[in-house]
Amino acid sequence: MMRRIKLVVAYEGTNYCGWQVQPSVITVEEVLNNALYHLLGEDIQVIGASRTDSGVHSLGNVAVFDTNTRIPPEKICYALNQRLPEDIVVQSSCEVPADFHPRRCYSEKTYEYRILNRKIPIPTLRRDTYFYYRHLDIEKMQQAAGYLEGKHDFKSFCSIKTSMEDTVREILSCTVKKSQEDIVAIRITGTGFLYNMVRIIAGTLILAGIGEIEPEDMREILQKRDRSAAGPTAPAHGLTMIGIQYC
Amino acid sequence: MMRRIKLVVAYEGTNYCGWQVQPSVITVEEVLNNALYHLLGEDIQVIGASRTDSGVHSLGNVAVFDTNTRIPPEKICYALNQRLPEDIVVQSSCEVPADFHPRRCYSEKTYEYRILNRKIPIPTLRRDTYFYYRHLDIEKMQQAAGYLEGKHDFKSFCSIKTSMEDTVREILSCTVKKSQEDIVAIRITGTGFLYNMVRIIAGTLILAGIGEIEPEDMREILQKRDRSAAGPTAPAHGLTMIGIQYC
Repeated sequence: MMRRIKLVVAYEGTNYCGWQVQPSVITVEEVLNNALYHLLGEDIQVIGASRTDSGVHSLGNVAVFDTNTRIPPEKICYALNQRLPEDIVVQSSCEVPADFHPRRCYSEKTYEYRILNRKIPIPTLRRDTYFYYRHLDIEKMQQAAGYLEGKHDFKSFCSIKTSMEDTVREILSCTVKKSQEDIVAIRITGTGFLYNMVRIIAGTLILAGIGEIEPEDMREILQKRDRSAAGPTAPAHGLTMIGIQYC
Repeated sequence: MMRRIKLVVAYEGTNYCGWQVQPSVITVEEVLNNALYHLLGEDIQVIGASRTDSGVHSLGNVAVFDTNTRIPPEKICYALNQRLPEDIVVQSSCEVPADFHPRRCYSEKTYEYRILNRKIPIPTLRRDTYFYYRHLDIEKMQQAAGYLEGKHDFKSFCSIKTSMEDTVREILSCTVKKSQEDIVAIRITGTGFLYNMVRIIAGTLILAGIGEIEPEDMREILQKRDRSAAGPTAPAHGLTMIGIQYC
């Protein structure tokens, strides 16, 4: 009997050219497909929810596939992890309805962008935080982040490398916090994201944090609908896909 | 003019065979000596405070050396970091009195042992937390830790690989906390430590956490003065040297 299985997938993106299968480079999706082939003996191509970029990490990306296996759905993750490298670990597996599609069903995705904000880098944090030594004013970043919440046209926050007709998206929350360990965490939850959107938001909030723009400038940046109005795209390795909530 | 310089050194221990120079393997001390040679043109052998084991990490180990350089002491760390790999980063440099010795002067050292306590590993945490899937009772671990505070003979918590005559040491504090991210952090501050002492304490507190021993058994384990009375040596990669306070 054919069943649709949903996997929650965590990975360190350092050694992968992103999620999506591409010729002649190693991607998370490809490694997952190969491990599933070896486990199930079926030719499987998973459908991923978030096609994360090269170097981006994940605690809870979602992938879906159909299988005839008799392995109980909840056990697949354990068997699969035996066949995966240590930088990709499936957190859970379960059966979902046959029409469940990880990108087409309504969902709330959460990303976190982490900045190590101090004078000198910390070696153990170099792979999953962006080291930035100029002092960031957290309050200003929080104020700037507030302007992004709600439904807006985020064309200014979309990479020009893609041509997306509809650039209106809804951000449910965008918060900025600084931990005792000097990590500034920008956490963004939304129902959909444009290409590089979180990294461009992070790059723009950094400009607010150093006073290069004022928090209220965010309104104008949104209105301009022009990529060059926003800040730079922050580096990939600071970004982590935290999780996806299907409602 | 000869000056004595103190460095605070952070590193990810993953790629090093520990701190101390050894033939035919790469160590943190050796990489530091080489970088200092290239920066200063002097043949330098640093003296380290904590000779951490292979795989152990550091946020604040201390190293000392003498130099004739005219580089201002506070600037040495920046120049040195240019010559160091990204997994070793000097956090600060300053001049200290000529008789300052990082192991002979009175100090309070703090170590942290981190355990990822959940059913499934998280890839981004695999290098600096020990993954342990059986549920740990934090309260029991805290109670057990309490017995270690104070001045005791820690012979039961010393590797049999060394022969140390005086095995009395003073633990100023030993605390156990669990974070929202399922990380159990055992933090130990003391004026001196025996070989493998923190890792054996961690291994023994884990036994208390799973109910294999009772917190009050710690008293007997100390009294026995026998390595086999304590728990196993927890893996090196969970351990981080946090910092050293010279008073």
